Amino acid sequence: MNAPTAITHLVPEIRQRDVPQALIDALKARFGDNCSTAMVVREQHGRDESSFTSVPPPAAVVFAESTQDVADAVTLASRHDVPVIPFAVGSSLEGHLLAVQGGISIDVNRMNRVLAVQPEDLTVTVQPGVTRKQLNEAIRDTGLFFPIDPGADASIGGMAATRASGTNAVRYGTMRENVLALEVVTASGEVIRTGTRAKKSSAGYDLTRLFVGSEGTLGVITEVTLRIYPIPEAISAAVCSFPSIEAAVRATIQVIQLGVPIARVELIDHNTVRMVNAHSKLGLREEPMLLMEFHGSPAGVKEQAEIVQEIASEHGGQAFEWATTPEERTRLWTARHNSYFAAIQSRPGCRAISTDTCVPISRLADCLLDSVQEADASGIPYFLVGHVGDGNFHFGYLVNPDDDQERAVAEGLNEQLVARALSLGGTCTGEHGVGLHKMGFLVDEAGAGAVDMMRTIKRALDPKNIMNPGKIFSM
Amino acid sequence: MNAPTAITHLVPEIRQRDVPQALIDALKARFGDNCSTAMVVREQHGRDESSFTSVPPPAAVVFAESTQDVADAVTLASRHDVPVIPFAVGSSLEGHLLAVQGGISIDVNRMNRVLAVQPEDLTVTVQPGVTRKQLNEAIRDTGLFFPIDPGADASIGGMAATRASGTNAVRYGTMRENVLALEVVTASGEVIRTGTRAKKSSAGYDLTRLFVGSEGTLGVITEVTLRIYPIPEAISAAVCSFPSIEAAVRATIQVIQLGVPIARVELIDHNTVRMVNAHSKLGLREEPMLLMEFHGSPAGVKEQAEIVQEIASEHGGQAFEWATTPEERTRLWTARHNSYFAAIQSRPGCRAISTDTCVPISRLADCLLDSVQEADASGIPYFLVGHVGDGNFHFGYLVNPDDDQERAVAEGLNEQLVARALSLGGTCTGEHGVGLHKMGFLVDEAGAGAVDMMRTIKRALDPKNIMNPGKIFSM
Repeated sequence: MNAPTAITHLVPEIRQRDVPQALIDALKARFGDNCSTAMVVREQHGRDESSFTSVPPPAAVVFAESTQDVADAVTLASRHDVPVIPFAVGSSLEGHLLAVQGGISIDVNRMNRVLAVQPEDLTVTVQPGVTRKQLNEAIRDTGLFFPIDPGADASIGGMAATRASGTNAVRYGTMRENVLALEVVTASGEVIRTGTRAKKSSAGYDLTRLFVGSEGTLGVITEVTLRIYPIPEAISAAVCSFPSIEAAVRATIQVIQLGVPIARVELIDHNTVRMVNAHSKLGLREEPMLLMEFHGSPAGVKEQAEIVQEIASEHGGQAFEWATTPEERTRLWTARHNSYFAAIQSRPGCRAISTDTCVPISRLADCLLDSVQEADASGIPYFLVGHVGDGNFHFGYLVNPDDDQERAVAEGLNEQLVARALSLGGTCTGEHGVGLHKMGFLVDEAGAGAVDMMRTIKRALDPKNIMNPGKIFSM
Repeated sequence: MNAPTAITHLVPEIRQRDVPQALIDALKARFGDNCSTAMVVREQHGRDESSFTSVPPPAAVVFAESTQDVADAVTLASRHDVPVIPFAVGSSLEGHLLAVQGGISIDVNRMNRVLAVQPEDLTVTVQPGVTRKQLNEAIRDTGLFFPIDPGADASIGGMAATRASGTNAVRYGTMRENVLALEVVTASGEVIRTGTRAKKSSAGYDLTRLFVGSEGTLGVITEVTLRIYPIPEAISAAVCSFPSIEAAVRATIQVIQLGVPIARVELIDHNTVRMVNAHSKLGLREEPMLLMEFHGSPAGVKEQAEIVQEIASEHGGQAFEWATTPEERTRLWTARHNSYFAAIQSRPGCRAISTDTCVPISRLADCLLDSVQEADASGIPYFLVGHVGDGNFHFGYLVNPDDDQERAVAEGLNEQLVARALSLGGTCTGEHGVGLHKMGFLVDEAGAGAVDMMRTIKRALDPKNIMNPGKIFSM
């Protein structure tokens, strides 16, 4: 394992490209008030939930209301060789939305229509600005739901662009498995479609999956067709406390290895339980805990729950608390969903530097426990949550963003963790994406040859390098 | 829906490129007896299970025994601008293996080692020449299995290259969902790795899924890391006869819409049951039938089976026959697995022209029933089987390969079927790939813009157009 080839963690490479006034004029002529150059609007579109500050905002923001709007904005930007950064809710943790090479932001929040629901096919087609909660609200009456839940109420476009996943992925997969088809505006402003509504296909290169996870660097996603699922007949949630993180993790590993079709299994460490208790007054035991959810028929859920309860108690798990009504489940899941904000509020003014490693399930304890020790030794406050059923977990190191020393210590912890995950056959990012933050790690993980292949594809599909440039790999 | 833009069905475009003697000499020098130019060997590598005949064989065959062998063969071919066609068991149905632009074949059958089994992670890494049956044999003692079953005992490399699936895909997904990582020799002879053993990742472009389904046109797959699954505690198989194809299909649609996690649900029409009875002496009722399999805990399997039996009887299903022992299951599945060969043997000397459309589940009856009527009216003998749980089915029109008129009628039926599937939101190929046979349909399905994007990627990654050229799209 080599050291990361580029320290992009602390200060991203900023290389502002010229945004000619002629482009601004053309955008204003085409979009009127839907093109804004007000500083407050630009600043709002020039940041995200990452720890990066001090990147100048985009020169203008176009509020797109249709695919044609996006195509026209990209065409104009292309004519002037100006970068384009798609923007929806701004929940990226990795600096995806920062205008490191300048350019314009295309805000797709107004493209928020659910275009088609086909309950009889378990599919739905939405515009990119639809958020996951909005989607679930819109299809509630069909008895179906969209399971992918990254925590934040992210946009479907952003989730596709970063290959997001979250708590339900252990059973339902990630955006990789659940996007069936896309409409995309390419770097030249052309509109193409990828995929169909068929469940499977061998029809040529898998362009859908090339765009899923491409982080806006190959085109702007303007429509997404997704798989949706019948709301299970029975849903049951439980929390269980463990004497140690190790015990909780070893119980999880055993559940997964046995093939129990658990829908969610989330780790929350004792630090984080404490923060959540302080934030949301939940009165949970301040010990490492697993939050679990079981989906299926009543008999199936009971069977799964019994197996898991037995495994948990073999590992010292206690205080199993069950929730079967939606209200009780919501209360339990509040702990998980609020953990990020509870942690941020535990240290006023801080930013979280998030880790996102994911390893093969058998290596999860090896990867996690040494990293906990290192984090404890560093003195940096942190929270620790994990989609442990997938081998994926997040430390959030709570740093003062203006304290370079503190940030450097946190980034050092992350480097050690990533090196460990890679040596165990894992990845530097399970679900957040590379963005600015993990560019060096990507080379360590994939190798220079594979990253060069990504660059070659980028160069071929975006010869002017205008689509969210400077993300994933330097270019 | 336009007519297909290129009629590649009957006679593929043959554009033989020069294979200089200097290359043959260099291959002989590097590979000795592992490079053959014997006509019988070349001819064996110049055909597949498609209906195409009369394409000249490759100029030489290299029997690769290692990744280095593949890399060296590709490097030498690249130096002379000569096409390279990877070959394993030759079970392609779409002309993938035919040397339409000449070149050399790289046979990977000797790369048949299971390199690593990690039962604790539910992963395995194999060389590309390992077949699916060989893999399952190798991991039998671990209590795990690899579910993807396209019928033929195909190679894992070939299955990855065509994004294969088959009978278990309704529950376990396709090669798209089950390949975690690859080693690939690129067009320049470089060796790269894509993906990791982590269950999920957001680390850059999804090169793994770009190669899965790329049909040898972007590189040669030399290692495949796969997901494997615990052998279910209980497995139960059943056949059920129906009064009509429509009844069988409507029962299937309802099972899928209810979210029953059925592992297999295969349609076999009455024609095909008759052929299989004649071939394998099975004594099955010569009516349309569904073959089903249920995986899970004993209670879960029982529950699924009860629901399905109830749905089936609502649609007139009768004569449910159950099999719970491996021997009984094998007997039932013989009907499905032998259907292709039983059909071929029902008309000596014939070739099957296979269709492979896949549609959203609610449109399955619409797509299938009109096509049955058209096939019946044509007078061409055919078999009909389907992975109907996925909305995917295959007509096999049994034609005399030397009778152009008959082939034209069969291809006309396929064209009508594909047009219908596309108008219903489906795909021209659910699992066989495009190869030579569906190049025109791909343009109809994906649109010229998306196919151009595929071409752009191909040109960028294989600038000399040496990797299985002339497949998927003309180039």
